[in-house]
Amino acid sequence: MSSAGSSWTRTETDELGSRRLPGEALYGISTLRALENFPVSGVRISTLAPLIHAMALIKKAAAQANQRLGKLSARKAEVIGRVCDELLAGQHAAHLLVDVFQGGGGTSGHMNLNEVIANRGLELMGHACGQYQHLHPIRDVNRSQSTTDVHSTALRIALMQGAPQLERALLELAGAFAGKAQEFGGILKLGRTHLQDAVPMTLGEEFGAFAAALRAEAARIWPISQGLSGLNLGGTMVGTGLTAQPDFAEAVIAELQRLTELPLRRADNLVSAAWNPAELVQFSSMLRGIAVTLAKIANDLRLLSSGPRGGFGEIVLPSVQPGSPLVPGKSNPVIPEMVNQVAFHVAGADVSVGMAAEAGQLQRNAFEPLIAHCLLTSFGMIEQAARLFATRCVAGITAAPAACAANLDAPETLIAGLAALLGTEPATEIAKAVAEGEDLATLLQERGFGANLIKGPLT
Amino acid sequence: MSSAGSSWTRTETDELGSRRLPGEALYGISTLRALENFPVSGVRISTLAPLIHAMALIKKAAAQANQRLGKLSARKAEVIGRVCDELLAGQHAAHLLVDVFQGGGGTSGHMNLNEVIANRGLELMGHACGQYQHLHPIRDVNRSQSTTDVHSTALRIALMQGAPQLERALLELAGAFAGKAQEFGGILKLGRTHLQDAVPMTLGEEFGAFAAALRAEAARIWPISQGLSGLNLGGTMVGTGLTAQPDFAEAVIAELQRLTELPLRRADNLVSAAWNPAELVQFSSMLRGIAVTLAKIANDLRLLSSGPRGGFGEIVLPSVQPGSPLVPGKSNPVIPEMVNQVAFHVAGADVSVGMAAEAGQLQRNAFEPLIAHCLLTSFGMIEQAARLFATRCVAGITAAPAACAANLDAPETLIAGLAALLGTEPATEIAKAVAEGEDLATLLQERGFGANLIKGPLT
Amino acid sequence: MSSAGSSWTRTETDELGSRRLPGEALYGISTLRALENFPVSGVRISTLAPLIHAMALIKKAAAQANQRLGKLSARKAEVIGRVCDELLAGQHAAHLLVDVFQGGGGTSGHMNLNEVIANRGLELMGHACGQYQHLHPIRDVNRSQSTTDVHSTALRIALMQGAPQLERALLELAGAFAGKAQEFGGILKLGRTHLQDAVPMTLGEEFGAFAAALRAEAARIWPISQGLSGLNLGGTMVGTGLTAQPDFAEAVIAELQRLTELPLRRADNLVSAAWNPAELVQFSSMLRGIAVTLAKIANDLRLLSSGPRGGFGEIVLPSVQPGSPLVPGKSNPVIPEMVNQVAFHVAGADVSVGMAAEAGQLQRNAFEPLIAHCLLTSFGMIEQAARLFATRCVAGITAAPAACAANLDAPETLIAGLAALLGTEPATEIAKAVAEGEDLATLLQERGFGANLIKGPLT
Amino acid sequence: MSSAGSSWTRTETDELGSRRLPGEALYGISTLRALENFPVSGVRISTLAPLIHAMALIKKAAAQANQRLGKLSARKAEVIGRVCDELLAGQHAAHLLVDVFQGGGGTSGHMNLNEVIANRGLELMGHACGQYQHLHPIRDVNRSQSTTDVHSTALRIALMQGAPQLERALLELAGAFAGKAQEFGGILKLGRTHLQDAVPMTLGEEFGAFAAALRAEAARIWPISQGLSGLNLGGTMVGTGLTAQPDFAEAVIAELQRLTELPLRRADNLVSAAWNPAELVQFSSMLRGIAVTLAKIANDLRLLSSGPRGGFGEIVLPSVQPGSPLVPGKSNPVIPEMVNQVAFHVAGADVSVGMAAEAGQLQRNAFEPLIAHCLLTSFGMIEQAARLFATRCVAGITAAPAACAANLDAPETLIAGLAALLGTEPATEIAKAVAEGEDLATLLQERGFGANLIKGPLT
Repeated sequence: MSSAGSSWTRTETDELGSRRLPGEALYGISTLRALENFPVSGVRISTLAPLIHAMALIKKAAAQANQRLGKLSARKAEVIGRVCDELLAGQHAAHLLVDVFQGGGGTSGHMNLNEVIANRGLELMGHACGQYQHLHPIRDVNRSQSTTDVHSTALRIALMQGAPQLERALLELAGAFAGKAQEFGGILKLGRTHLQDAVPMTLGEEFGAFAAALRAEAARIWPISQGLSGLNLGGTMVGTGLTAQPDFAEAVIAELQRLTELPLRRADNLVSAAWNPAELVQFSSMLRGIAVTLAKIANDLRLLSSGPRGGFGEIVLPSVQPGSPLVPGKSNPVIPEMVNQVAFHVAGADVSVGMAAEAGQLQRNAFEPLIAHCLLTSFGMIEQAARLFATRCVAGITAAPAACAANLDAPETLIAGLAALLGTEPATEIAKAVAEGEDLATLLQERGFGANLIKGPLT
Repeated sequence: MSSAGSSWTRTETDELGSRRLPGEALYGISTLRALENFPVSGVRISTLAPLIHAMALIKKAAAQANQRLGKLSARKAEVIGRVCDELLAGQHAAHLLVDVFQGGGGTSGHMNLNEVIANRGLELMGHACGQYQHLHPIRDVNRSQSTTDVHSTALRIALMQGAPQLERALLELAGAFAGKAQEFGGILKLGRTHLQDAVPMTLGEEFGAFAAALRAEAARIWPISQGLSGLNLGGTMVGTGLTAQPDFAEAVIAELQRLTELPLRRADNLVSAAWNPAELVQFSSMLRGIAVTLAKIANDLRLLSSGPRGGFGEIVLPSVQPGSPLVPGKSNPVIPEMVNQVAFHVAGADVSVGMAAEAGQLQRNAFEPLIAHCLLTSFGMIEQAARLFATRCVAGITAAPAACAANLDAPETLIAGLAALLGTEPATEIAKAVAEGEDLATLLQERGFGANLIKGPLT
Repeated sequence: MSSAGSSWTRTETDELGSRRLPGEALYGISTLRALENFPVSGVRISTLAPLIHAMALIKKAAAQANQRLGKLSARKAEVIGRVCDELLAGQHAAHLLVDVFQGGGGTSGHMNLNEVIANRGLELMGHACGQYQHLHPIRDVNRSQSTTDVHSTALRIALMQGAPQLERALLELAGAFAGKAQEFGGILKLGRTHLQDAVPMTLGEEFGAFAAALRAEAARIWPISQGLSGLNLGGTMVGTGLTAQPDFAEAVIAELQRLTELPLRRADNLVSAAWNPAELVQFSSMLRGIAVTLAKIANDLRLLSSGPRGGFGEIVLPSVQPGSPLVPGKSNPVIPEMVNQVAFHVAGADVSVGMAAEAGQLQRNAFEPLIAHCLLTSFGMIEQAARLFATRCVAGITAAPAACAANLDAPETLIAGLAALLGTEPATEIAKAVAEGEDLATLLQERGFGANLIKGPLT
Repeated sequence: MSSAGSSWTRTETDELGSRRLPGEALYGISTLRALENFPVSGVRISTLAPLIHAMALIKKAAAQANQRLGKLSARKAEVIGRVCDELLAGQHAAHLLVDVFQGGGGTSGHMNLNEVIANRGLELMGHACGQYQHLHPIRDVNRSQSTTDVHSTALRIALMQGAPQLERALLELAGAFAGKAQEFGGILKLGRTHLQDAVPMTLGEEFGAFAAALRAEAARIWPISQGLSGLNLGGTMVGTGLTAQPDFAEAVIAELQRLTELPLRRADNLVSAAWNPAELVQFSSMLRGIAVTLAKIANDLRLLSSGPRGGFGEIVLPSVQPGSPLVPGKSNPVIPEMVNQVAFHVAGADVSVGMAAEAGQLQRNAFEPLIAHCLLTSFGMIEQAARLFATRCVAGITAAPAACAANLDAPETLIAGLAALLGTEPATEIAKAVAEGEDLATLLQERGFGANLIKGPLT
């Protein structure tokens, strides 16, 4: 409640005592304590926008559910809903200050949001900040909820809401590779195993495999994000629903379904759901899997474009920045290198998630804030990396057919590769002709094989 | 071919030259070179029995497919099949000597098997070892195959074949917890968050959540193991099918389906399948996920049984070995501790798998042997750990109801927990009575609430 | 150079073409391209303040060295030095915009700084931004340098400069534990192995071990940070020193020594130094080691303070925020929980660093920006976590001697523990007396043993 | 004690009851229980030979110390010593059966050894196995010891004893690279950053950097292994020395120093030493660091030898096995590939070690057996991998000077690289001449620069 004599500060009180706050601060004493307790990383919860949005959706849905159950006045529910809409529009981020590395399982960040909603609601209702008798961060905004269920549910919704975008980003990248696969379909080149010259294939096949690998990753996203749909809302502190209205869980989840259009449902076992981050671990693993595939492809592009003279040089990546003032014309594969770094980061974050999940004890995982931070950071970076990979690298790749042909023209490889298919004699004949300068593709076409000769057995 | 003058050694020759081998060695020159190249870990491929068995199934299926396609005589196919049956029965393991840490993407281990099949086949045919003109490790045993497709396919089959056992082991463990959940259903105890006294729940709910978490892990196994069903058999070296009979892939996969009763199919994109270990990475992640859940539960059991006096002491684990000669009667939670260590090992192996997958280059992942070693080792240990956890620990757990009651009887907790449900006055009343020595459960029953009071809102 | 007709934009040109920039932007075209290429994480290089500061020191030292070698005018050197001083004072951070997840091995971030120095220098010289003919980001600011040597050197200096603060933070934390060890020296309590009641010890010994463990970690910092002192300045692109003035390395390192008061020296092998992040990997490992020790101690504090009734309850952590609106008076161990999360994050980042280091190819590690990001982030968080741990948790811990005594008073433990030392008879006698309500410490003192009885053999 | 009526089995009894054992089994009832409790990985403690040897040394030293302190008869001490010598000679491994994945912090493996020593000692004394009244596994063999101090001490001694061999293996590998560096000193080649053609260097410089990097790793081994020298022998269960003779610690460590010639000493804080695996974590990190460096070098060798036609092809690795029956003459880099896999394994094991260390609770780390398994396995594999790398790969590498020259001859690179050093005009001139077929090295020598031109500034 704001102190009488001063228009600039107000005083709030909790179990530990009273503290003065800036008069217009939308946050309250819980946030203030968290700012003192957790100045750790300098990264604020406002940077986890999808989590904030999902929490705002929950608060809005909870207010509506509580109103329907007769536990909240229409006026309060309406005001809470309006503030949540403002939060969803990106407002008030400057008041969401808690460090992402917070103890308490997310209580501080959650209370930061509850306080901002209450205080902004008070403003809308014509009251001063801190006059919680009119709209209370806990008794009203957090009614029938606890951090255990709100934080976990919000993270799940955030990931489910983001999943289609991630899928789309991967499919766009796959599409970029598929386009190149078609473009490069006729270019015969060397296939390599163990980095050693092996047998012929086409550049189109090589890029087509990248597309296929990415599509397979994209296809995993929806099923795994669906695994997040079981919510522990209504379970409150340890999953037993203590203090929650009997019908609250059903009501709030129905409301959330409506708001998010996601197939949400109550978790099968709320006591397990209170502590069990297994589906979040699975999601982290999925991100790690995508990262591994992206990194492998980025590695290959860097290899295939190595040179241009003193390397494989079979493709040319678009130049997006000068390479070095010392070597004019040098162009470094900076986009794939960025992709690699994102991948390594995601792989490390996956280890952190595993450790945080394993460390949960009894009825609660106190380390869910770290899990949220890792998942949302990895998620956002993979999505961005995939988009940039597609638009600023893959889309502009050109083939270097001369280098492809030159690398293929090692007579041993040719004889070995073709003999298996055409018999030893014609293979040796062709290899000789190539060695004398004739064009391999032409030679093959003359004999009726064409560029997709090598796919023959598989068609 | 065995050298004339000596009954004790024979000479074999490859591209690099000739080498003498023990006359009765079922392995050949490829294996000999691998023994010299890779004395690294001392762990032989024979320890990866599921992989050996799967390779034997492939060799048998390939022989039958090749016979059907007219590429292998009935006699040879029959002999190869007989040797594979012997391998499946566990024979000849003493000749499978290659170190699991082999370079070459599994070529050496694969050749070890090809050589053993050829030589044992030669014995069955009445020839001496090494007389490969009658049955050749490559031209006959490996016909239309390459390490790229055989090793990858074998690993997938091995994991798919093992999956149901792993699922069963987890379900048995879940069942053991579920049984205890029922047994402990009436025991009221303290629920804790952040290791701090929170609100009441039952010991049955706590154990029921363990069961639920394990069932959720078990339910993930089949879908993810199904992701392994796309085989690159017939793709040979780089996925283009070079040197494979056009109809070989179809024939051999049909044969394998028959032999394994698994829903096997040809991979959608064989070029991708030649290098892409993404589904293996997913499988590794799944094992890591199971490990995390097992470890969390093991941690909880160790906590709940801590004491017995100076700890939580709410349950008693069965004593399976004396704890310490210094403290007679001490009983350590050695089975959960074993489970924890397995979990940490699996989590580390998952990192190795990710690195190995990411490091694959171009048309092949040369590090598949490490992936196989990690996956099969983790797999076997999780399965064993789950079984031992169930039979040697969970099945014998007993509750300590007195400790449960004592821990719950903190008046603050009681008032806090009950007030929310019963109102402040009755809660305070009950808490007082408990403090004066009355039994909480009785007090609740007298008021018509019973032990599952706290589940009220959720039923 | 700023375009004629407009006071609001200017045009800059590089190998790839021309681009318009905000007229007063201190950054230039390289930064602009990086903003387009790497909108990945949203985390800007300005957040890595120690790296920026170290780069500014290098730029200042290089300008002075170049001036001394006659390669830069006194005026330019002076201006560059002034801008570097501004950067060291924290100015111009708003112009350091490149994402920390940049490809190109740090080229973009490095160029961002070069451009800011040049443009701010131009301002100081009375020129417009972009008029690089008067002060050039590459030819002047970057003279005799390359990203390879500047980025690597800056990271090493940043870590070495920070090392003493980290050491101090750990020693302060160790000191806080040591103070408590003294305070708690007389409190007999239960020692536990495997979470099971074992033998008596003092709370002072328990806390003293925490102090000892932290001091051991602190003692590792200086030697390992010294391992970073070998710089590749002057090695330029691949360590061969191409384009660098022969005497530049010596001159710039001497200047840096003067500016930083660090024992810097030229790396023994500059070609290795150009690609080899081994000492950075070691530093990362050291941070992981500290994290593991911090986490173990945080775990123990959470365990020892568990309860307060239904747990170990032997110590009480200071309450820094209310625990839960549902359970008035509940106080969660939020500071140790924060420490745990930092530790898990650091452990994951260490995996990322290892992967990034391993992925370096040939003469350069392109993934050094990720290594820098991981190391500096982990470093800063560990330091902060240690300080907060000391001031907001350890300093306020109080013992709960009654609980310590109660936990110890299990007769089995007492007999077992004391019998070994006093013989079976007196042990049984004491245990009986304790069971009848007498005070253990008094009983021991009466028999002439005192609280440090158990340290007898070790004194 | 062996049962009366049967010469084939004997009965032993512990706290949990009586069990029958094979009459001649050197192990006893503790081992039997462990075999039932921990059939997890199938890997027996006998495979950790360095740990077994170190434990045998401790047992021998303890017997001598106890004899000197009057706590063990000369006869018993002598017999224990003799059995330990047999163990050190590799005998009795068939009786060391406990799985390395054991709970209890190593108690089972330790008891296995105690029992084998007692029973084999009984044989030597003319008694039957199990007649422990004459020589007791705990009261005699384990006198004044506990698993806490024996297991931890043994692991430290094992690593310290092995350290010089690991150092030697790395130095031999470094020596092999240094030899090649000298051999290849005159071969000019392309230096690459970001896999792109950059500036000239020599193949000798490239290999010299490998040698330097490995020497730096080797130089870290001794200091870090010295960190293991503080032993907790005499601290017994929780570091308070309870039940140990006052002078035992000093006596046994002096004896161990004599037997091992290692600079062993008592840990500064025995309570910390009882639970603190920090120095083991450091050792694990060191192994990870070596692994990263080995992997980077292996990666480079695979890259530099890629082709031979369609790749970098600048060096040729010795062929140690045929590459593929499909491509005669193909030679895969199987030794570097093995090295990579070892590195990935070690990196994963390092994660496991970190998790195990972090999970230790209160006075003991129950997961030390996993730490021991990871460290010793990684250690042995790195040592072997380094040796095989040196002897079977590096020693036989030959340069491909023609490819080196061809890769360098890209005119852009040459002009860029040389212009910086010689000025633009002579650089363009040389580049033209090279493009017309003249030899670069000759051209440079004609102008008085020679092959080490590029090292000019650094000499």
